[in-house]
Amino acid sequence: MIVLGIDPGLSLTGWGVLEAFSRDKINPVRYGCIKTMPSVSLMQRLQNINAELQSIIDKYKPEAVAIEELFFLKAAKSVTAVGQARGAIILTVSLNKIPLFEYNPKRVKIALTGYGSADKHQMQHIVKTFLRLKEIPKPDDAADALAIAVCHVNTMSWNNTSTIVKS
Amino acid sequence: MIVLGIDPGLSLTGWGVLEAFSRDKINPVRYGCIKTMPSVSLMQRLQNINAELQSIIDKYKPEAVAIEELFFLKAAKSVTAVGQARGAIILTVSLNKIPLFEYNPKRVKIALTGYGSADKHQMQHIVKTFLRLKEIPKPDDAADALAIAVCHVNTMSWNNTSTIVKS
Repeated sequence: MIVLGIDPGLSLTGWGVLEAFSRDKINPVRYGCIKTMPSVSLMQRLQNINAELQSIIDKYKPEAVAIEELFFLKAAKSVTAVGQARGAIILTVSLNKIPLFEYNPKRVKIALTGYGSADKHQMQHIVKTFLRLKEIPKPDDAADALAIAVCHVNTMSWNNTSTIVKS
Repeated sequence: MIVLGIDPGLSLTGWGVLEAFSRDKINPVRYGCIKTMPSVSLMQRLQNINAELQSIIDKYKPEAVAIEELFFLKAAKSVTAVGQARGAIILTVSLNKIPLFEYNPKRVKIALTGYGSADKHQMQHIVKTFLRLKEIPKPDDAADALAIAVCHVNTMSWNNTSTIVKS
């Protein structure tokens, strides 16, 4: 199945597409970053995120989207920006009728490393090794998005995949 | 011109539609509230907000949308919920190509009462009087949405309205 992982942000939204044949057989397809500039209006930035995400969905046709849960301890201003981007992203996924799964950062770490306190560098290294990439994905947001997608593949029940119909 | 005011929230999004002929001649058209239940998924709630807002836009064809700026001092969890709803709302407005205007709460108070520290009850009373309503709009979110729409009518430059073409 095709899984799209997303690490949402207003300035940078990381994304990563995987093709999973089983919990252990996962091929990276493509990853990248949606960037928006603070110099344009919030309305335009959310529209740009929507348009780029729509083209990723159209191109790779993910059957599931995995997104990181919003972390409450960040500064209120940062939570606000990420929250608004996240709302636009979730609405876009919803309008495409793709199932969405949310994972908190600790769960992503446990899924990839076996323990919940792995640091950013360890996580990125494991993403690189696990997906047999030549280098650590850049920017960090893209690596995080791939980690979330891997977490979904590791967490989902593979017994049920026969019922998933490609949209 | 038709103005739609929005007070965004994940559980309750207030909305109010006005028809303005000049800064002082404003007729209320309709107001109400979009409600979503915490018992359904965030994805479904944002989709419901999008669908109801789209039907309001289709029905009243607003030429401008006015929305309250997000207030940073609320609890992080509340900012997160409002932020996500706000992101979905702004994206919906943007996809309809309607100009969006943001006003902070103080500016809305000054526009309606002449000073920035009016309390909620005063604001609601002024909305009722100004729009010649029989009673104070309920719930509060709908009254707030009407106040934001009135603020936009009072703030906009009426010299330029001849250039506005109905969509």
